[in-house]
Amino acid sequence: SKSYNITLLPGDGIGPEVISVAKNSLQLVASLEGFGITFEEMPMGGAALDVVGVPLPDETLNSAKQSDATLLGAIGGYKWDNNEKHLKPETGLLQLREGLQVFANLRPATVLPQLVDASTLKKEVAEGVDLMVVRELTGGIYFGKPRGFGTNENAQEIGFNTEVYAAYEIDRIARIAFETARKRRGKLCSVDKANVLEASMLWRKRVTAIASEYPDVELSHMYVDNAAMQLVRNPKQFDTIVTNNIFGDILSDEASMITGSIGMLPSASLGEKGPGLFEPIHGSAPDIAGQDKANPLATMLSAAMLLKYGLGEEKAAQRIEAAVLDTLNRGFRTGDIHSAGQNLVGCKEMGEEVLKSI
Amino acid sequence: SKSYNITLLPGDGIGPEVISVAKNSLQLVASLEGFGITFEEMPMGGAALDVVGVPLPDETLNSAKQSDATLLGAIGGYKWDNNEKHLKPETGLLQLREGLQVFANLRPATVLPQLVDASTLKKEVAEGVDLMVVRELTGGIYFGKPRGFGTNENAQEIGFNTEVYAAYEIDRIARIAFETARKRRGKLCSVDKANVLEASMLWRKRVTAIASEYPDVELSHMYVDNAAMQLVRNPKQFDTIVTNNIFGDILSDEASMITGSIGMLPSASLGEKGPGLFEPIHGSAPDIAGQDKANPLATMLSAAMLLKYGLGEEKAAQRIEAAVLDTLNRGFRTGDIHSAGQNLVGCKEMGEEVLKSI
Ligand SMILES: CC(C)[C@H](C(=O)O)[C@@H](O)C(=O)O
Ligand SMILES: CC(C)[C@H](C(=O)O)[C@@H](O)C(=O)O
Repeated sequence: SKSYNITLLPGDGIGPEVISVAKNSLQLVASLEGFGITFEEMPMGGAALDVVGVPLPDETLNSAKQSDATLLGAIGGYKWDNNEKHLKPETGLLQLREGLQVFANLRPATVLPQLVDASTLKKEVAEGVDLMVVRELTGGIYFGKPRGFGTNENAQEIGFNTEVYAAYEIDRIARIAFETARKRRGKLCSVDKANVLEASMLWRKRVTAIASEYPDVELSHMYVDNAAMQLVRNPKQFDTIVTNNIFGDILSDEASMITGSIGMLPSASLGEKGPGLFEPIHGSAPDIAGQDKANPLATMLSAAMLLKYGLGEEKAAQRIEAAVLDTLNRGFRTGDIHSAGQNLVGCKEMGEEVLKSI
Repeated sequence: SKSYNITLLPGDGIGPEVISVAKNSLQLVASLEGFGITFEEMPMGGAALDVVGVPLPDETLNSAKQSDATLLGAIGGYKWDNNEKHLKPETGLLQLREGLQVFANLRPATVLPQLVDASTLKKEVAEGVDLMVVRELTGGIYFGKPRGFGTNENAQEIGFNTEVYAAYEIDRIARIAFETARKRRGKLCSVDKANVLEASMLWRKRVTAIASEYPDVELSHMYVDNAAMQLVRNPKQFDTIVTNNIFGDILSDEASMITGSIGMLPSASLGEKGPGLFEPIHGSAPDIAGQDKANPLATMLSAAMLLKYGLGEEKAAQRIEAAVLDTLNRGFRTGDIHSAGQNLVGCKEMGEEVLKSI
């Protein structure tokens, strides 16, 4: 019978706690759906720095490359904040994304009816928000060369980076975005700064060209400053957003905060072929690490994305998603989404309740 | 007796309407405070493109350079949206900023008690927000070279830009930001992406170095993605924010929308010496242009910033600011900030009511 290899990267802070809970849910739905999963747990981020001295050991990258999909907890913490660049946990994450060539980062931001009060936005603005940010993840200013430090013609110290996109990089992320929009409400908004940046002008040109392959999807364009405003003014206007690496970093985090419950939000990073990378969008939360306070639902929903986008096990994915909603409906809440009258639980107990719902 | 030269750039869309109203308020407070103002009105943006064929004619830039300060309405519109880069209204604005060397862009975002309901944020989150974004305006990816189009090693079309900062550029904007924070609540948050970008690492290093000159100001650092979240989660945590050109573009617009009343928000762009540039942060709103519906208060408050930061006429500035508040207290509202029970007025009438209050 079918069996998959999954690489688990618990990472730092609350990472190990949420990964352990999500692993249990993967195991349970696998047995219910009749397939096997073998897990390989590998060090990454600060945890790897402490043991091996690098944020992404070769063995970890190889395990991720050879597996069917990778589930990451969270990385980073105060301890490594002042490390040199090549010894930062974040650098390990960028190396992992590049190594797996996962150029398409899907970040849903959904306001669940159960959690609409968690948003700082007025109820009528927040309720019903259901958008997807498709962020380009292996190009742009994050990876562009030349980059570094130097001196200018006046012998002044300078720091520089290159924002660069090639047509094929834009084309492939655009196609993923159009496909995504097609499966949703058929509306795609491409965000750029084409009134100023040449890299954005090419972006807009290519996205517009690719649009002819998707006549059923309605394409619009928006400048990034306006998009940052519109997400606050009326987030419901958005269905699918596609944008470059750095704008996607900023806008997807803004969108996630608009839902008010970033402890609930998963993400998927996919390549042309080869295994994907799945992770909650929240950080490692060193302040509450090891205290059984973390919200494991974002990681469980990332596991659901892993099942759906990574393994094609749609039914198993739906089992987790439905169980998460059911657990919320039964009133269980971790501290980050707790409000009066609800049942406050820790990370482990939340995980167990979801297993019961499954 | 004292007299100043002011260059007026009405620009496009609602620009001429709001400039005409703001001009009247400048004239009135000048006569009350006993100084003279001579105005020179010059074409800029789409208006200049239509007449002279360039978005910033030499005569316009020279007038701005030779005046004591420049007040700009708004630029841009559908008509010129598909122009080539050097024929875009926006390009004229960038040339004006560069020509005047106004590297420091001050963008206050304040939630007035009278207008707290205009925000899409919950009242308890929005009320009392009073922050200032200090945006670097003549450097970074907006102006960095090399930039343009080309082909990569695989003969693929590419578009590229350079994010680059020299130490002196960071130092001078940091000093403006520390001075600004010192006159406010003494808290400065520097926003960057130093976990990924070398340009941001230098930014953080220099801002930290300059901090030693301002021991009375409390400095913190935040990554741009987190800042985009925190502005939604709890905007009251911010006093003064300093950041680079592109992050400032995005975050200042997000912050302005958090107030819910971008028709109220002014900005000042200042250089080391030489005349400043003052403009409302809103756009040219072609949809309502020529219909006497625009909110002139952002431009009047920009005129107040011009008096204060541009001419040192603090008292005259306060007269306009107080009159704007008084007019709101008397219940007058343009359409963008109107709510039930208030007195709906057009652009001209709003202007006249402010003159009465002055
Ligand atoms: C940790 C950091 C390098 C990363 C990024 O900027 O991509 C994070 O913010 C994210 O969005 O996944
Ligand atoms: C019009 C555009 C070039 C400009 C900018 O990006 O600086 C505008 O968005 C602003 O913020 O003043």
